[in-house]
Amino acid sequence: MKIGIVAPANTANPEMVAPLTAYAALAYPEVELVFHPQCWESDGHFAGPDARRMAAFLEFANDPEFDAIWFARGGYGSNRILARAMPQLNEAARAKKYVGYSDMGFMLGALYARRIGRVAHGPMPTDILRSSGGGDATVARSLGWIARGERQGLEPGLGQRPAAAFNLAILGSLIGTPWLPDLTDHELLIEEVSEPMYNIDRLLFTMASATQLRGIAGVRLGAVTGVKENTPRWGETLPVMIQRWCGDMGVPYLGPAEIGHTQTNRVVPFGVA
Amino acid sequence: MKIGIVAPANTANPEMVAPLTAYAALAYPEVELVFHPQCWESDGHFAGPDARRMAAFLEFANDPEFDAIWFARGGYGSNRILARAMPQLNEAARAKKYVGYSDMGFMLGALYARRIGRVAHGPMPTDILRSSGGGDATVARSLGWIARGERQGLEPGLGQRPAAAFNLAILGSLIGTPWLPDLTDHELLIEEVSEPMYNIDRLLFTMASATQLRGIAGVRLGAVTGVKENTPRWGETLPVMIQRWCGDMGVPYLGPAEIGHTQTNRVVPFGVA
Repeated sequence: MKIGIVAPANTANPEMVAPLTAYAALAYPEVELVFHPQCWESDGHFAGPDARRMAAFLEFANDPEFDAIWFARGGYGSNRILARAMPQLNEAARAKKYVGYSDMGFMLGALYARRIGRVAHGPMPTDILRSSGGGDATVARSLGWIARGERQGLEPGLGQRPAAAFNLAILGSLIGTPWLPDLTDHELLIEEVSEPMYNIDRLLFTMASATQLRGIAGVRLGAVTGVKENTPRWGETLPVMIQRWCGDMGVPYLGPAEIGHTQTNRVVPFGVA
Repeated sequence: MKIGIVAPANTANPEMVAPLTAYAALAYPEVELVFHPQCWESDGHFAGPDARRMAAFLEFANDPEFDAIWFARGGYGSNRILARAMPQLNEAARAKKYVGYSDMGFMLGALYARRIGRVAHGPMPTDILRSSGGGDATVARSLGWIARGERQGLEPGLGQRPAAAFNLAILGSLIGTPWLPDLTDHELLIEEVSEPMYNIDRLLFTMASATQLRGIAGVRLGAVTGVKENTPRWGETLPVMIQRWCGDMGVPYLGPAEIGHTQTNRVVPFGVA
């Protein structure tokens, strides 16, 4: 079981290598983690120029020696390689699992839209460095699903219907583009981080108004963390907002979801879990 | 010539009334400015609850006594009244002009999508209070176009083709929804304020990837002001970004546009100017 790690957005922190490798060696000894050197490169905002990040992704995704691609971290920028990378994926890429979240929602969305591989919204290698501790348990959810198809790390509400999970800002950026997959009959799980409430409300408007999402089965709301200050004061609570927009959308609000930019972020395989 | 002023997003500053009324009395004596009391109301983030803001807009828009609706200011929130307000507009609303920008792009987009009235992206009453001075000349562009159809306040590159103008974040929120008008063969003018570069790039990705915008004639870039700090450092310039995304979109970049959250913001009537 060989897992390739690449960084299609921002530069990853090499301090993740030692603890992640040590933990995997103990808990998942059948796993070999291979960090692409591109992970540590830097070019302005990004982990290397667009062409370099794309080449690293394609090199590992198209290599039949690898069983999965695990995205090192998020940030911003994986959207910039979609148009050129997606048409170059081969048969080996179709046989893989792909796991990440946050900005990696661009990759997951584009792959799922084309039914390439088996994609999941879940913890990334960088999560082992979270300052709150407990990173082993966090990354174990993704490792367990990738290496052994374990279900104990999955979001607990899954199983009734197909599902998909996105950071709300990434979902908003995908809406109206061909990179948004067909989510008909899916439960849509969303989470958000580091946005002011007015922008969360505006993103919910776009979600609720999106013609592409009219057939979804319902919405579940994950963690909304690091909310930025709103001026003037924002008077509504998140439960009021999500239920109002789901009402406008004409789909049920299905309750909370255990996903987010948090240590408790759980795995959501796209489609039927 | 009676112009009704309402605030479908944030509370307006009543200090605008005296200088705006005085200026209009001198320069456009045929104009009567009527401020709806809703402009000064407050409910959390907004200039009154959604129902109140909608009612004020409908009251003036549907009143045949008024020749135009001039939106007092932007902020956030006019999107929240679209779904209920638009179906209630009557024949009198179809005979009016509507002017605003920023968050009011939601109103302009929804009206233009339904071919209701004559809409323009242009300075608002609040612009007379800009601390940089010269607010008279700024609001005069909108007043002149509304009251007399004057062309000297129009964006100077208009006239070759139909056009439309949006704040980029508002455009991004409209993409994928039925509130985005059909902009086939239009020049699309965009401007932005108070966003970090990574988010501007992400919004340009959505614009460039939007299936609804595939038929546009080209893109022009207005002022991008108050750019927020980007971490890590952003390495690209705006000219590089806009030309790269226009290239991906397969439409020409048509050069700069004199619009924005600035004193020099000019009027862009939607359609043929």
